[in-house]
Amino acid sequence: MERPPEFADILDAAAHLEGKAVRTPLLESMLLNEAVGGRILVKPEALQHTGSFKFRGAYNRISRLDAAARAAGVVAYSSGNHAQGVAAAARLLGAPATIVMPADAPAIKVANTKAYGAQVVLYDRETESREEIGHRIAAETGTSLVKPYDDPYVIAGQGTVGLEIAAQAADAGAELDAVLSPCGGGGLISGTSLALKERSPATDIYAVEPEGFDDTTRSLAAGSRQSNDPAARSFCDALLAPTPGEITFEINRRTLAGGLVVSEAEVGRAMSAAFRFLKIVVEPGGAVALAAVLSGKLDCRDRTVAVVCSGGHVDHETYRRILAAA
Amino acid sequence: MERPPEFADILDAAAHLEGKAVRTPLLESMLLNEAVGGRILVKPEALQHTGSFKFRGAYNRISRLDAAARAAGVVAYSSGNHAQGVAAAARLLGAPATIVMPADAPAIKVANTKAYGAQVVLYDRETESREEIGHRIAAETGTSLVKPYDDPYVIAGQGTVGLEIAAQAADAGAELDAVLSPCGGGGLISGTSLALKERSPATDIYAVEPEGFDDTTRSLAAGSRQSNDPAARSFCDALLAPTPGEITFEINRRTLAGGLVVSEAEVGRAMSAAFRFLKIVVEPGGAVALAAVLSGKLDCRDRTVAVVCSGGHVDHETYRRILAAA
Repeated sequence: MERPPEFADILDAAAHLEGKAVRTPLLESMLLNEAVGGRILVKPEALQHTGSFKFRGAYNRISRLDAAARAAGVVAYSSGNHAQGVAAAARLLGAPATIVMPADAPAIKVANTKAYGAQVVLYDRETESREEIGHRIAAETGTSLVKPYDDPYVIAGQGTVGLEIAAQAADAGAELDAVLSPCGGGGLISGTSLALKERSPATDIYAVEPEGFDDTTRSLAAGSRQSNDPAARSFCDALLAPTPGEITFEINRRTLAGGLVVSEAEVGRAMSAAFRFLKIVVEPGGAVALAAVLSGKLDCRDRTVAVVCSGGHVDHETYRRILAAA
Repeated sequence: MERPPEFADILDAAAHLEGKAVRTPLLESMLLNEAVGGRILVKPEALQHTGSFKFRGAYNRISRLDAAARAAGVVAYSSGNHAQGVAAAARLLGAPATIVMPADAPAIKVANTKAYGAQVVLYDRETESREEIGHRIAAETGTSLVKPYDDPYVIAGQGTVGLEIAAQAADAGAELDAVLSPCGGGGLISGTSLALKERSPATDIYAVEPEGFDDTTRSLAAGSRQSNDPAARSFCDALLAPTPGEITFEINRRTLAGGLVVSEAEVGRAMSAAFRFLKIVVEPGGAVALAAVLSGKLDCRDRTVAVVCSGGHVDHETYRRILAAA
């Protein structure tokens, strides 16, 4: 696909993913609703294969490679969720996978990526460029690069989350005032918003980011792509993209109502609320949209709001620390 | 209903629960499958409304009360999951609820039961009888007692778990060699096995119990209802029934292939595996069936096995301890 993705591409992705990806439920908690004074519907993509939504885009992308390209294999760079999504999808589709991961990625993400059969190449996030390493491996070995977000098939795959939210909200008799999704490079929110703008046009859609990595929020306000301070740090390891993607931002500037920014303390409380009320394990980056709702960054009183909890890979130690603070 | 429940009653319960209960997904993890050398399908009832399967039976039971009985209210005794299921279902159906709970129940279960609007009466598990207290309150106040398992409507409601497993396994192209479910008084396993014996008759169904509370396992072997040692203790607080139910055991003796027993260490490892591979929070009693699979109590190599993870209410401190040990 040499053009930006459109709604029809998301329908096509849904057909490709039928019976392959989990149709995650849309969860609701009476007690959570009371806590915010509105109706909150939660899309738990932590329950997706490989523990995050990334499987959707990776499977959709790799399934389009012809037999020769699949046999040659794929390469990807990722802090961990895209890594696992690509590794598992590649294995299901018979393609060898090489994954470039930062040396400081959560141990569970590295271990799982290897367990899916991928070869893992570690790099130093401070001094090396994962894009350069990924492109070099692809060029030297003749493998196909599976980008984490700036790829039409990847965006269309992630967009199936939006299709499902629209259908499941309708089944639950809910008219969505707003939908919130975590945002790193913008693949999930761009695909999801493309789907929702077609299926639920009156719904306001927000990207949610952690403090220090609010590039999409600032880019939407400025009207052009802005970058994060290279010195910024966050425990939301899934959301550390330095700047919005080109393709994703062209979509998001049309589809989004704006961006919201949450603190680490707010993220921790959201992870703890997911433990208590929803019984799902959510990683820091996966919990930012829920954090925006619980912290009142978006006022949900008397409104119906869906939030995506995008991934669940958090190390034992971090999770224990979060629960202890709650 | 004055007779034992039949398959048609489960279909009827499913119609009553349509749009009220969560149709929980059937989850699968490539890495978990590899760990056991078979195909493991997990039914996460921790994601059900109120955090356990108990909502199904409670809602089915209370929805059959006429308007006068609903207005008079309901009473139930429970260590916590039935408590929350009854409290939430009663609230949705407009019935005041009084719940008799042991003073040593997990704090999260007591707090949630109150949050659903129920009045909570605490009792001493060592010196008082919850059945006596519940029956006395029902008699004195003219409220309806909602039993935790020995009630045809409750059993039929829990049986919808089995209906869903059969349908979802078929959707996933899986032929079930075995289904394992946690067992306390036997409501969940009796309803589930009734449904499965109709929809998947060749599947072997096992009750799984914690050490010290293996009354159903021994009763199945003996052919008559056996009791547990009153001095027995377990951290599987949801599974501490002293003996199998009368109605449930009459079903289970016909439908079950047998019982399996797991240790607390095996339960802890299963809770940790659910955290790592499935991203669901499972309480000790909810994890015994998964523990039976992971510990090899049932050999799953080259077999397809579904397990029910029946509830997710575990206190922060207990969960932190489990994760630290893993």
